[in-house]
Amino acid sequence: MYGAGDVRIENVPDATLIQPTDAVVTITRACICGSDLWPYKSMEPSEKGRVMGHEAIGVVEAVGSDVRTVKRGDLVVMPFAWSDGTCEFCRAGLQTSCVHGGFFGNEEIPGAQAEAVRVPLADGTLYQLPVAKDDALLPSLLTLSDVMGTGHHAAVAAKVGPRKTVAVVGDGAVGLCAVIAAKRLGAEQIIIMGHHADRITLAKEFGATDVVRERGDEAVERVLEITGGLGAHSVLECVGLDQSTVTALSIVRAGGAVGRVGVPQDAKLPMADETFYKNVTIAGGPAPVRAYIEELLPDVLEGRIDPGRVFDRTTNIDGVPAGYRAMNEREALKVMIEF
Amino acid sequence: MYGAGDVRIENVPDATLIQPTDAVVTITRACICGSDLWPYKSMEPSEKGRVMGHEAIGVVEAVGSDVRTVKRGDLVVMPFAWSDGTCEFCRAGLQTSCVHGGFFGNEEIPGAQAEAVRVPLADGTLYQLPVAKDDALLPSLLTLSDVMGTGHHAAVAAKVGPRKTVAVVGDGAVGLCAVIAAKRLGAEQIIIMGHHADRITLAKEFGATDVVRERGDEAVERVLEITGGLGAHSVLECVGLDQSTVTALSIVRAGGAVGRVGVPQDAKLPMADETFYKNVTIAGGPAPVRAYIEELLPDVLEGRIDPGRVFDRTTNIDGVPAGYRAMNEREALKVMIEF
Repeated sequence: MYGAGDVRIENVPDATLIQPTDAVVTITRACICGSDLWPYKSMEPSEKGRVMGHEAIGVVEAVGSDVRTVKRGDLVVMPFAWSDGTCEFCRAGLQTSCVHGGFFGNEEIPGAQAEAVRVPLADGTLYQLPVAKDDALLPSLLTLSDVMGTGHHAAVAAKVGPRKTVAVVGDGAVGLCAVIAAKRLGAEQIIIMGHHADRITLAKEFGATDVVRERGDEAVERVLEITGGLGAHSVLECVGLDQSTVTALSIVRAGGAVGRVGVPQDAKLPMADETFYKNVTIAGGPAPVRAYIEELLPDVLEGRIDPGRVFDRTTNIDGVPAGYRAMNEREALKVMIEF
Repeated sequence: MYGAGDVRIENVPDATLIQPTDAVVTITRACICGSDLWPYKSMEPSEKGRVMGHEAIGVVEAVGSDVRTVKRGDLVVMPFAWSDGTCEFCRAGLQTSCVHGGFFGNEEIPGAQAEAVRVPLADGTLYQLPVAKDDALLPSLLTLSDVMGTGHHAAVAAKVGPRKTVAVVGDGAVGLCAVIAAKRLGAEQIIIMGHHADRITLAKEFGATDVVRERGDEAVERVLEITGGLGAHSVLECVGLDQSTVTALSIVRAGGAVGRVGVPQDAKLPMADETFYKNVTIAGGPAPVRAYIEELLPDVLEGRIDPGRVFDRTTNIDGVPAGYRAMNEREALKVMIEF
């Protein structure tokens, strides 16, 4: 990506081992993220550009001399953040705050919308998958690199559990995965808030029990109506805009929790006083998806959850610019790239 | 209180039963709260005025026909909020959000800096104390009406526990009770942030292990130094000003929690993006002290905690205006009123 709306397919130098803790992974599946649309809308023109992409499955091609847990030929999933797996934060299951870690797909660390990627700290980052590289579950397994783990993080941060009423703000891929996560954690009622017919249909298939298609104040009123005037115990904020944040903070019940995973587009959080008087918990952030793979993987492998259904378009590498356009224009929900 | 700085002692009509669920309580001990200083600094002049006070111990004088759990002659503690004890929120232990409840000491509901007070919803609100009305523990028992429960709430909201590093922002009565609460919940390290020598001395006696006397950026640096550059697991915000909130949000470690009990003086919470990237939990609000009495009372009765030491001045009702002045000018930490 060279700037807003400017995505090009180019030959770049091959990914290579730099540190002894690195691996080089040949990508078999990658995808375009809703968060890739922020720079697609707003990135300043850049001479150097960014190799985009932070969600992938691939085959380990080479490992540095210090790598112990993965080897050449392993099929692995690559979380959107790389992490050492040993620091205080990694041991606490918060790999997105790893003291030696970082994120894929920025100007420093090339991303995974590419034939191959260099993975720093391979031992702490990569997770070996117990399937063949053409397995039918690959789309669902690919979501463990970001959107399914992120939806799960929203649900955990918002304290979803049995007998809880849950509202999911946003019907993008993360919002839909948040519905899966809420259902999986035993929520009694799951309200999806969105207005794209096909996404709402999918949300219902994933377990949403109620739909709120309105926006702004009307949406807040509808959720209050549905919840007996009290609001939802758990609100999963999967957008990050100011409007969606106000909605989320307005529909949470006293003593409830908002799990935010939409990257905030404003440095101030509104309603600091109202959320105080209501004893609302606000939690969440970049999901430590590496920590969640172990918990979510069995459910994917045994078919209990099927988050791969969020992919509604598949392309090869040459179709990536068109994939960005389609997602940006809401023609596609989420685009998978096959190599 | 008739306006900022204008506190008068006056004869007012006697407190009486209005609803069959009411009790009338003759006050034996009350006090002035740090939060009473907000109107003391800023209240618009008012013809009618407010009967202030929301923390008290007293003797039940009369009960309405529907009151079942307290009777004439009982010594009771009165939490700062009244609540029915039966609604969804009360049953969940969040009495400050009771659907039929409210707060003492505003223009509608007269407060407890008075010889007697009408207590709505007496069954859900009052808690009978198993001591005599001249017991030496009365000061500590009085703190269960607000400051000790509020400090405890900050600690609970900030997830204090064993092996945790805790920072307490503010050395007022609530901050000092928050130190007691953090120690009681097993915190390994307790950093008190404040700069009043006598309060810091008390904080250390209550269990503070480290003192940060600096303010602003320097205070943040000091806490980071003390915590190996990582910040505190649990930050207890006991002030509510914008500056103290920024400090609290700056010294919490990634994955940590801020428990806020200082009433926020700004409608926007700063650092919405930084706290997101750090996966910080922000929780707290008006403490459901009614719910905490049962947990804290045995520790007071058996002398394991002694929060009554936050009272450094005692007065009779006529000394209340001077008590406000002394607290406002930081000459007194917290003033107790004896009847």
